[in-house]
Amino acid sequence: MTQRTILWLSAHPEHRSLNGSLRRDGIGHLESAGHTVLDSDLYAMDWNPVVRQADAGTLEDGRFHVTADVRDAYLQERLPNDVASEQEKLLRADAVVVQFPLWWYGMPAILKGWFDRVFISGFAFGKDASTGQRLRYEQGPFTGKRALAAVTLGDRPASIGPRGKSGELNELLFGLLHGTFAYTGMSVLDPWALPSADFTEDYDDVLAGLTGRLESLFTEAPIPYRPQFTGQYTDQWELVPEILPEETGLSIHHESTP
Amino acid sequence: MTQRTILWLSAHPEHRSLNGSLRRDGIGHLESAGHTVLDSDLYAMDWNPVVRQADAGTLEDGRFHVTADVRDAYLQERLPNDVASEQEKLLRADAVVVQFPLWWYGMPAILKGWFDRVFISGFAFGKDASTGQRLRYEQGPFTGKRALAAVTLGDRPASIGPRGKSGELNELLFGLLHGTFAYTGMSVLDPWALPSADFTEDYDDVLAGLTGRLESLFTEAPIPYRPQFTGQYTDQWELVPEILPEETGLSIHHESTP
Repeated sequence: MTQRTILWLSAHPEHRSLNGSLRRDGIGHLESAGHTVLDSDLYAMDWNPVVRQADAGTLEDGRFHVTADVRDAYLQERLPNDVASEQEKLLRADAVVVQFPLWWYGMPAILKGWFDRVFISGFAFGKDASTGQRLRYEQGPFTGKRALAAVTLGDRPASIGPRGKSGELNELLFGLLHGTFAYTGMSVLDPWALPSADFTEDYDDVLAGLTGRLESLFTEAPIPYRPQFTGQYTDQWELVPEILPEETGLSIHHESTP
Repeated sequence: MTQRTILWLSAHPEHRSLNGSLRRDGIGHLESAGHTVLDSDLYAMDWNPVVRQADAGTLEDGRFHVTADVRDAYLQERLPNDVASEQEKLLRADAVVVQFPLWWYGMPAILKGWFDRVFISGFAFGKDASTGQRLRYEQGPFTGKRALAAVTLGDRPASIGPRGKSGELNELLFGLLHGTFAYTGMSVLDPWALPSADFTEDYDDVLAGLTGRLESLFTEAPIPYRPQFTGQYTDQWELVPEILPEETGLSIHHESTP
């Protein structure tokens, strides 16, 4: 088995929790297989998730232009250390596991703010200065990296299924899976999910489900999101009328699966 | 015009920004019409968005059970003041306007963490202690309140349209609109959105769009999400097979619109 480097990003306030155990044992499983794990346990790190002017440093006109000023700070290598250090981990990683409890059908704030502060313009997306090429989706800077979301949640399984009241999980997480992972070039795996997490009876069984997914982290077929720059989308970023004509909904952005 | 109370929740780090101007002028518009506005400008308040053990206070067994321990703190009236104060504002409000720039296709972390910390079990959802009735969706505690998301974003308009590469906006925001607003009982309006926000040329025109929506805050027809407890969903929280048989996707959770 090829040795790889994996960034394990997690967000739970109690290390003596189901999430805490899955984090510890998931990391242990990867390390036992000879991989290197970079560990970003955001609560343990007391991670600051709030984008503020301090991320950009001193401003030219005293007014904070979020995207542009933080990009300048990145390009001039004057980002805060906490952000720069997370960017270095991400660059070293062949894959990212993002593990969290689903709160209000999304990521806990401390985790959302990891993306807000770390995935900045110039680093996670942008334009090639010489060619003008857009660096996103299949041209994104993180092509070759894989991403797996590992989620615990309170709802019962059917409620996050295709016709479930809460919304199908991959669609609920579209902003993360497609709008963040795929947008920056990563290959995105189907999330691992544990519904009815409060009623977990057999921890070993749950863990085996997760470690099984970790074992196929580099071999599974990713979600077949359509590439942006091969003619499937117009220059207004709409699916061309010839593909699935008249159809709507987030699933139109997958190529059909076999 | 009936005088109402509106909670204006906003999240932008620079008050001299487009978002800052829309916040100021939107609030001014409501006040000129005689309404009372409760203002939660999260950056100005230096709001802490991170759920931590401190929200629950001292723990019985030293281990933080997030949902249950914070619910206990709520029921025993020992929540931190910042959380209790936001809950009071929400209870006073007839409507909530939630205004933010779309970052990584979701809310800025400081705003996500407002819901994580304020919308806790017992307050925003739960079970009626005497009847056992589930307090959510049409039985939720916030029925009678209206919710409007007001979003600025970088993508061009078509990209968040029905066939847009980024995903249709109401589907991208399903976790907020349906999983948070509707879940807690609110009537949810179609979001107001400003795409291509970085290329805004005519501020007055943009503002007029927003104030137009504010004027119909209490009269617009809300998004017709299906109620949960009237037979449209199974007890496993799936849409019953007789409704839109075989269909999937987030849009199945709307009643068809005229």
